[in-house]
Amino acid sequence: MYRIGFDIGGTNIAAGLVDEKGAIVSRFTLPFEKEAYRGALAEKLAGMVYSLIENSGIRKEEVVSVGLAVPGSIDPNAECVLDAYNLDLHNVPFWAEVQAQLPEFPVLLINDADAAAVAELYGGAFSEAKTAVLLTLGTGVGGGVIIGGRLWRGGMGHGVELGHMALDISGRMCSCGVRGCIEANCAATSLITAAREALASGERGLLYGRCGGDPARVNAKLVVDCARENDPAAAQIFGDYVNALSSAVVSVIHLLDPEVIAIGGGVSLAGDFLFDPLRESVKKKCFFDTFARIEPARYGNDAGILGAAMLGADTVI
Amino acid sequence: MYRIGFDIGGTNIAAGLVDEKGAIVSRFTLPFEKEAYRGALAEKLAGMVYSLIENSGIRKEEVVSVGLAVPGSIDPNAECVLDAYNLDLHNVPFWAEVQAQLPEFPVLLINDADAAAVAELYGGAFSEAKTAVLLTLGTGVGGGVIIGGRLWRGGMGHGVELGHMALDISGRMCSCGVRGCIEANCAATSLITAAREALASGERGLLYGRCGGDPARVNAKLVVDCARENDPAAAQIFGDYVNALSSAVVSVIHLLDPEVIAIGGGVSLAGDFLFDPLRESVKKKCFFDTFARIEPARYGNDAGILGAAMLGADTVI
Repeated sequence: MYRIGFDIGGTNIAAGLVDEKGAIVSRFTLPFEKEAYRGALAEKLAGMVYSLIENSGIRKEEVVSVGLAVPGSIDPNAECVLDAYNLDLHNVPFWAEVQAQLPEFPVLLINDADAAAVAELYGGAFSEAKTAVLLTLGTGVGGGVIIGGRLWRGGMGHGVELGHMALDISGRMCSCGVRGCIEANCAATSLITAAREALASGERGLLYGRCGGDPARVNAKLVVDCARENDPAAAQIFGDYVNALSSAVVSVIHLLDPEVIAIGGGVSLAGDFLFDPLRESVKKKCFFDTFARIEPARYGNDAGILGAAMLGADTVI
Repeated sequence: MYRIGFDIGGTNIAAGLVDEKGAIVSRFTLPFEKEAYRGALAEKLAGMVYSLIENSGIRKEEVVSVGLAVPGSIDPNAECVLDAYNLDLHNVPFWAEVQAQLPEFPVLLINDADAAAVAELYGGAFSEAKTAVLLTLGTGVGGGVIIGGRLWRGGMGHGVELGHMALDISGRMCSCGVRGCIEANCAATSLITAAREALASGERGLLYGRCGGDPARVNAKLVVDCARENDPAAAQIFGDYVNALSSAVVSVIHLLDPEVIAIGGGVSLAGDFLFDPLRESVKKKCFFDTFARIEPARYGNDAGILGAAMLGADTVI
């Protein structure tokens, strides 16, 4: 018995054949071509399904579901893609389109951040957990919530927008147009923004040396590396970042009191250099004497494929 | 069939006999005397139960439960009061103490903000709702959360601390010692603080006239009244308050997507003058095209009694 999961991104479409142990046993990746796929994406995905089955030497009867993780908002019935800017899909009845192309399999649709949270339920950071939250710190801040051991899609079915909870309403403007969202302070991008501001205001330390004074060469890893090497400006930026992130984590704890908070995305690769001060700061701010384990998400780039595949396991949502 | 609910506060102990329709048919209130009750509070409550039954002319067999709402943190088993500062109760096995005094009735213990949320489920703002959040804007900011039509006590049983979610981490220090909590920006107290700061910085408008220049005479209602009369300083303070509150509400919506958010406490008495701009501001900041109804809590001072009483209805938690 196998399940197929798709992680459909603005750059690539990645498909994986997932076995009963939750391992990806076969993969198929294609570049996402916005123009070529306009109106023909469902057909393309169906082709990938049949290729994946054929190339894996299994019978199609062994595939029990096909899940689609999409970087965008999904309607409460999980049928339409409301807005997926990177895919240029807007109010598209995507589920029906793909289901029509794949009549032999139940097709399921999910937001990619939700898919990543579902993936962690299967052998990942959320194993055994009933209440858990995933925060993904990348270009933006995404996340998924598990309540009662199942994916939480919101009381009205709108899903969650963890990155756009308020954090610092006197602070930075968020790309969404609202001041002070978690995303404006905890995305990898906010490390870059802060470093560029430091350079612009005349900072000439390690950070400046490493990027040759070129703001375009600043990335989140560079800021973390310089902080690790005790560059004062980078250390300050990273310290402020950890302070903001710990407040975001405390907000989630004070509302949901989850057993686990998993952190994924590029910034989580800083490892203990991030997690140690983060846990310490949460401990200082949290009202509860015990609180959620705070740990790295287990699944990185595979989270979308795995989560989409596991949607077919009807214990999940 | 009746239920008894207690709202035990630092000033008064209020008990009510609640009928099957959820109406308080009889009441008994005593001042809370911290010194006199030390170690004897359970006995006092039991006495009140028997007096209430006797004076109401019912038989004690008609009372199916006794609920206790306490202003403080409760352990995950709902047996101990961990900290209730106003009652001077700390790590007290309060449930067992009261149950021992009232062997004929099942005794149940709950936090008062949780009780208020439970009360709204019964003919109040949360009737028919599966996911709902109560925010109480008073001296502090309290709140209760309903998920799946039941009181949410947190994934690990610690309850919720809505007032101490982060909102403005560059802003005001909260009384809890952490900068920028919702409570530091959305409590009635924060209207008073902002008005006193305005007076201290030389503001001499309507606000100044109404309090005779005496900061001690400033209260939240005065600020609201002056804002209503278009005093520029008061209008600015109230506008900032609504902006902060709408961000707090959006945080809750983006995580839980509830069907209803009810707002209680002193500030909610401002009515449409609060709710109209609040809804408008939430609409601007919220990602979802439709979102929670935002409305006044139905039960004011009776919320604790009603919620504690309804704990006995086993559909609730």
